[in-house]
Amino acid sequence: MSSADLAGAPGHALAGTQGGPTHGGAIHDGTPLAVDLLGQYHEVRRASLALSAGWTPEDQALQSMPDASPVKWHLAHTSWFFEALLLRPSLPSYQAFDERYFRLFNSYYEALGPRHPRPQRGLLSRPDHAQVLAYRAHVDAAMSDLLEMADADLRARITPTLVLGLQHEMQHQELMVTDLLHAFSLNPLRPALWADVALAPAGPASHGSDVDPLHPSGWTPHAGGKVDVGHDGLGFAFDNELPRHPVWLQPYALGDRPVNGADVLAFIRDGGYRRPELWLSDAWATVQREGWQAPAYWVAGLDDDDYDVFGPNGLATLDPQAPVSALSYFEADAYARWAGARLPTEFEWEAAASLSGSLGGAGQVWEWTGSAYLPYPGFRPSPGPASEYNGKFMLNQMVLRGGSWATPAAQKRIGYRNFFPPGARWQISGLRLARDLE
Amino acid sequence: MSSADLAGAPGHALAGTQGGPTHGGAIHDGTPLAVDLLGQYHEVRRASLALSAGWTPEDQALQSMPDASPVKWHLAHTSWFFEALLLRPSLPSYQAFDERYFRLFNSYYEALGPRHPRPQRGLLSRPDHAQVLAYRAHVDAAMSDLLEMADADLRARITPTLVLGLQHEMQHQELMVTDLLHAFSLNPLRPALWADVALAPAGPASHGSDVDPLHPSGWTPHAGGKVDVGHDGLGFAFDNELPRHPVWLQPYALGDRPVNGADVLAFIRDGGYRRPELWLSDAWATVQREGWQAPAYWVAGLDDDDYDVFGPNGLATLDPQAPVSALSYFEADAYARWAGARLPTEFEWEAAASLSGSLGGAGQVWEWTGSAYLPYPGFRPSPGPASEYNGKFMLNQMVLRGGSWATPAAQKRIGYRNFFPPGARWQISGLRLARDLE
Amino acid sequence: MSSADLAGAPGHALAGTQGGPTHGGAIHDGTPLAVDLLGQYHEVRRASLALSAGWTPEDQALQSMPDASPVKWHLAHTSWFFEALLLRPSLPSYQAFDERYFRLFNSYYEALGPRHPRPQRGLLSRPDHAQVLAYRAHVDAAMSDLLEMADADLRARITPTLVLGLQHEMQHQELMVTDLLHAFSLNPLRPALWADVALAPAGPASHGSDVDPLHPSGWTPHAGGKVDVGHDGLGFAFDNELPRHPVWLQPYALGDRPVNGADVLAFIRDGGYRRPELWLSDAWATVQREGWQAPAYWVAGLDDDDYDVFGPNGLATLDPQAPVSALSYFEADAYARWAGARLPTEFEWEAAASLSGSLGGAGQVWEWTGSAYLPYPGFRPSPGPASEYNGKFMLNQMVLRGGSWATPAAQKRIGYRNFFPPGARWQISGLRLARDLE
Amino acid sequence: MSSADLAGAPGHALAGTQGGPTHGGAIHDGTPLAVDLLGQYHEVRRASLALSAGWTPEDQALQSMPDASPVKWHLAHTSWFFEALLLRPSLPSYQAFDERYFRLFNSYYEALGPRHPRPQRGLLSRPDHAQVLAYRAHVDAAMSDLLEMADADLRARITPTLVLGLQHEMQHQELMVTDLLHAFSLNPLRPALWADVALAPAGPASHGSDVDPLHPSGWTPHAGGKVDVGHDGLGFAFDNELPRHPVWLQPYALGDRPVNGADVLAFIRDGGYRRPELWLSDAWATVQREGWQAPAYWVAGLDDDDYDVFGPNGLATLDPQAPVSALSYFEADAYARWAGARLPTEFEWEAAASLSGSLGGAGQVWEWTGSAYLPYPGFRPSPGPASEYNGKFMLNQMVLRGGSWATPAAQKRIGYRNFFPPGARWQISGLRLARDLE
Repeated sequence: MSSADLAGAPGHALAGTQGGPTHGGAIHDGTPLAVDLLGQYHEVRRASLALSAGWTPEDQALQSMPDASPVKWHLAHTSWFFEALLLRPSLPSYQAFDERYFRLFNSYYEALGPRHPRPQRGLLSRPDHAQVLAYRAHVDAAMSDLLEMADADLRARITPTLVLGLQHEMQHQELMVTDLLHAFSLNPLRPALWADVALAPAGPASHGSDVDPLHPSGWTPHAGGKVDVGHDGLGFAFDNELPRHPVWLQPYALGDRPVNGADVLAFIRDGGYRRPELWLSDAWATVQREGWQAPAYWVAGLDDDDYDVFGPNGLATLDPQAPVSALSYFEADAYARWAGARLPTEFEWEAAASLSGSLGGAGQVWEWTGSAYLPYPGFRPSPGPASEYNGKFMLNQMVLRGGSWATPAAQKRIGYRNFFPPGARWQISGLRLARDLE
Repeated sequence: MSSADLAGAPGHALAGTQGGPTHGGAIHDGTPLAVDLLGQYHEVRRASLALSAGWTPEDQALQSMPDASPVKWHLAHTSWFFEALLLRPSLPSYQAFDERYFRLFNSYYEALGPRHPRPQRGLLSRPDHAQVLAYRAHVDAAMSDLLEMADADLRARITPTLVLGLQHEMQHQELMVTDLLHAFSLNPLRPALWADVALAPAGPASHGSDVDPLHPSGWTPHAGGKVDVGHDGLGFAFDNELPRHPVWLQPYALGDRPVNGADVLAFIRDGGYRRPELWLSDAWATVQREGWQAPAYWVAGLDDDDYDVFGPNGLATLDPQAPVSALSYFEADAYARWAGARLPTEFEWEAAASLSGSLGGAGQVWEWTGSAYLPYPGFRPSPGPASEYNGKFMLNQMVLRGGSWATPAAQKRIGYRNFFPPGARWQISGLRLARDLE
Repeated sequence: MSSADLAGAPGHALAGTQGGPTHGGAIHDGTPLAVDLLGQYHEVRRASLALSAGWTPEDQALQSMPDASPVKWHLAHTSWFFEALLLRPSLPSYQAFDERYFRLFNSYYEALGPRHPRPQRGLLSRPDHAQVLAYRAHVDAAMSDLLEMADADLRARITPTLVLGLQHEMQHQELMVTDLLHAFSLNPLRPALWADVALAPAGPASHGSDVDPLHPSGWTPHAGGKVDVGHDGLGFAFDNELPRHPVWLQPYALGDRPVNGADVLAFIRDGGYRRPELWLSDAWATVQREGWQAPAYWVAGLDDDDYDVFGPNGLATLDPQAPVSALSYFEADAYARWAGARLPTEFEWEAAASLSGSLGGAGQVWEWTGSAYLPYPGFRPSPGPASEYNGKFMLNQMVLRGGSWATPAAQKRIGYRNFFPPGARWQISGLRLARDLE
Repeated sequence: MSSADLAGAPGHALAGTQGGPTHGGAIHDGTPLAVDLLGQYHEVRRASLALSAGWTPEDQALQSMPDASPVKWHLAHTSWFFEALLLRPSLPSYQAFDERYFRLFNSYYEALGPRHPRPQRGLLSRPDHAQVLAYRAHVDAAMSDLLEMADADLRARITPTLVLGLQHEMQHQELMVTDLLHAFSLNPLRPALWADVALAPAGPASHGSDVDPLHPSGWTPHAGGKVDVGHDGLGFAFDNELPRHPVWLQPYALGDRPVNGADVLAFIRDGGYRRPELWLSDAWATVQREGWQAPAYWVAGLDDDDYDVFGPNGLATLDPQAPVSALSYFEADAYARWAGARLPTEFEWEAAASLSGSLGGAGQVWEWTGSAYLPYPGFRPSPGPASEYNGKFMLNQMVLRGGSWATPAAQKRIGYRNFFPPGARWQISGLRLARDLE
């Protein structure tokens, strides 16, 4: 399912953010500000509501594990972000909707005081769903006030944070999907996020006709050498994409498409989940401790070689040509080793994508890279509370690139560095193979 | 708050079960069956809905710990009990509302197959609240069918299980209150179960005018000797109250009232939570590991000697004369040792209560006894799936007696053996002192 | 193996304590003190050394789990007991061997200050084994001084604590055996405690010729009624055996012998470890979580019905007629239920043993009873630090009666209340069946 | 303490491995084999014994946590390595000392079958210390046989594994020191590894006279650009140091010396352990969960600003000029942020050290780098079982460079990539500051 597909679904409007807030405006390069920043604000905010409109208040209250949050919490926290970083500091007349929310919906900003414990977000039946919607409306009205009353100076000062807030909300739009999908995956009734719409991830269309749809895929060679990576200064970027800097790459090749269901099925049938030599040490310990035998959302049939896959439309027969999703780094790495290949580094991925404009089949599932999530040379966190946005997570995580069908179009930048711990299995995450060229 | 008080609350109808299913009928003694069993059935079932009517679907979906269950789950599980133990075996025409519920709402009956994992009951946003209500209505209609079509033989055969099901549902009515109260206690907004009704647990009224409201209370002596304990054969009893049998008691005295807030405040001020010599070994380990400094629902003010208490009406100033609640056995035992006394055994409690008809102030909070929950000599579990009802929990738990303000009146029997693990802190549980005579 | 057998083993001298310190002396009844208390002291102390003489310093340093302690620690702690409770308070000239040992070898006496953490006892390579032996000699010399310088008054004052210290040391002699056996059970080399001596637990000898060696055993009936239990005032008893008091028993019967290997083999072959209906709820959760399929020290052969058993002589073929050992309460209870019987209460056990002087086959393995370890009515802990000896453990434990082949003969009293948590699997613990009469 | 210092200690002979097995021989570059490989073998083997000669068998049996192993186990495992990878495959006449050791002393080689569980290595009192020494002698004799009987072909074939085995044993020599030091740190008696020898880590000597001994240190600038890193082909290297490849560095500067005790004391006094803004997210969670207030081996005096430090000579006053040791990555990173600097990448470290031959004060403590431990482009694991040596740990670990006072001199290569998880606090690990230029 592409964002375009999703846009067609009744009441689901990720595509509403297409174009997004960065067009016509540049945050880091000093060019003129967006003409219609307020319009973009409301567009992004409406998209969050449209996305979640089909889910019941009970659905939106679910927290299935400490790493995931309730949809309702996402809706409130993204509002809190504007309240805490813009309205409180910059709108003198602002009256809080409820002072207690300042603590309740802070995610992890130590500089902004103590927070409600993350594992207990699912216990907040109050404020209820209606109150959270009222909170959103309250913040939206105040944001309109702020933007309308702001003179040019104030607008210039608040725009970076405002744009960050919109990017932040778009990130949470994707998390609403992945977090609720995880919660639903634990319900034996196997509910669908969108039951009445056929939203199949696009499979074969991403392959050229001359490409074998099964492993091995075709390979595209790259010469390597000195290449510049990181944000080029046009449009929005997070602080972790800066500064742009040179890296040296050895010659390499990338697979023409993400690894798909048929590929992983072959891995399973070849004993992939039972062969320690294919796994990193921490990965194998996890496989054994957790009893992994297939990707997280795969459900074995009576015949163990026969799988259904749980996804946004509920349980469906495995689509062999759709990119595999909900894979951990552990599994992505083991698969690549089994295939006689490896994961690309984030810079190999970025260099190749920059050259051609995009990679075959990219954008349907995030692609694990073999790069640890670490600061670029010369990295400086954003000033103020936003300094905690990215930098403090630069350890024990691996970088993913490319975006998924649930990523708002406005965020699908080549330079975007997504990151998750290597054991994370609930994101829309797969892989693409790489190999060395001489 | 007494059940009578609760009855006055709009939409809360524990008192609707007063009288209950056992009047006019005797389950274990072979006397004639209830004239209006169906009427009693619907009365109990309606009481569950009335009790929960003021809580939102989001509230009713909360599970705050593995030991507690969502209200919605209680509503479904009590229906499942009738479906699994009566409708499926005895009503040939019965069509399940949803076959999957048979697994989803089984609590712990191994004989009835696998179950949804207990810690994941809070993840079931589906079936949603409305569907659970529809499930209840479906079961109720089928139960009406069953009772109306049953001939005398069938009625005789199913009556014990039907009455057990009603007692079961009344037990869950109290758990709905304690489980949701626990979930609310973890919400910084401190919601009230019943916000707009003044439901103060009765304090002074339970003391005679000549009784010092603070510790030490008055003492009532008992001669001990051979006494019979256990169910006397009149009215309903659980299998764990049988058989009636003699025990030999040494002379003892019981306090005239439950320990109250002022008593526990004195214990705290005397360093009770910091003095290992007052605590059992397992208890002291828990105090240290968990950092206990006061009862679970007590919230210290700025001055540490000043407490608010979280309860069904939200946070309120400590009522020094109200019986203390939400106490673990660990704390009850330590308090008694500090007071130079001890907990009564369940038989000391029962013998004294049987003699006088009741104990002073009893029935507002369950009272921990010093008795481990073990089978009576000659205990035989009920036949069939109900054999798992009580017997398999006879280890690692302590007995409580007397009932609480949330216990349906029809269940407030002197012989009722409630039981919880010694660390449980979320029930309406306190204590009464005992001491040896001679 | 009886203590008599063990006495014959080179260098192992549990039997050296036969007769023990209580003969000729009575602690609680005011009769004259032991003539040769010092002689008894040295006899018990030598027995500890003799018992452990064949184990290497490395063996004696092992701690296999928090519940078990190194043999070396036992040797030091039993010396600490005399130092802390007698030498420091009563021998003015006493110079500590090492002041730091006061903290290092305190077990759980809160009144005597902080302690080295229990789970880290196995990390104390220093003091080394030789230093601990020197510490023992130092304490022994000082104890000789104390007893020789004491006048009659002082002797009278210190005798209860001295005798308690000797009983304490004898308890630790048994723990040295069970704790090291547990550590050895985790060593794939399966070392023997005493490799070169045939120390088979006595099997058939304990059965009369007219008793079926396999289940069901013969039954001895008891009329029940009012019986007195607890210490009768002759000889030593721990505080938890007091006061003597009446209890009322229903008619019952006890099995003529402990349950043996053949019995448990039949249980296993009948699916005992796979049938939830046989187990208490906590027990079944443990069976599933831990994957229990047989008693802890049973090692399945290729054919799953064929077992070796790890014991003090290393791994040996299962002796079908030897009493089963190293059983948890969970398993003892499940076995009894499978056999259509139950565990006796500690009072049923004591009453029957008191009547006949002993029970058939008793004294080879401790026998789990169905009684929770709780205070007798009127229980008062010993004064001073010894108050922590027994009383604070009266929760979450079950009583065992009768003694084992590793119990010093001087401790094999009918009234002795041993106790362990229901999941404990490393003691010399089995069971005897009971059933209701009438 | 340098290795040279250590060499002077009676019975401790890390320095015995100076020069090491790689001089005169080149493993990866095809030049002639070592003239006296057997001599080098015995030299390294003797050094292990010399190092541990002063520790008692009880000391050598300690395992203080799953990550650490007993010294005795190290002595056995390093022998097992030669047995498993050389004697069994290549010496037809070889008779195992004990077949069971093959499983007992396998560390983590999945390809060589199941292993004794790592957390239970400390439970192996058998084989005892003497047997392990006999095992070593047995292996040594067989290795002599192998090398003496080997023709040129066989020698060529086995030499890489033999040299790997010697490097492996030298790595374990350092681990013997760090693992026993950790165990001793948990003993309240605070034993010294070497009590009677003054082995102070060298402090001031490593600074030039014109360098401020306290923070900030002097900085050495580096121009960056394209530099080659990785093994240059001369002498031994592990597979993870290959292949040599170019990287591109931005201009940077490195501190002239490792961070020392005075530096960290200033960090503590400035509230370093209480300020979340200085810590990575995972690090701060650890600080709070574990209650860290100072480095692991620092012991606060009565005045909290006054520290003793536990080290190989026991507890000693903090040496302000000695490089700080036993620091986790978490702490190293936080310290650097507090100092307005950062950790160098492993390539910045290697490039600077290669240029100048070494870095100021390097070689006393391992220096955490900001680089995740990941494969070099084109990395190929060694063939055979040795493939598990390094590659499978390339996740969730950070690289350290430089070597410590306990690192055998033969292993102190600039290109050596040591690695540990970021929370590891028991290695001889500190840091050196880096900063961006321009």
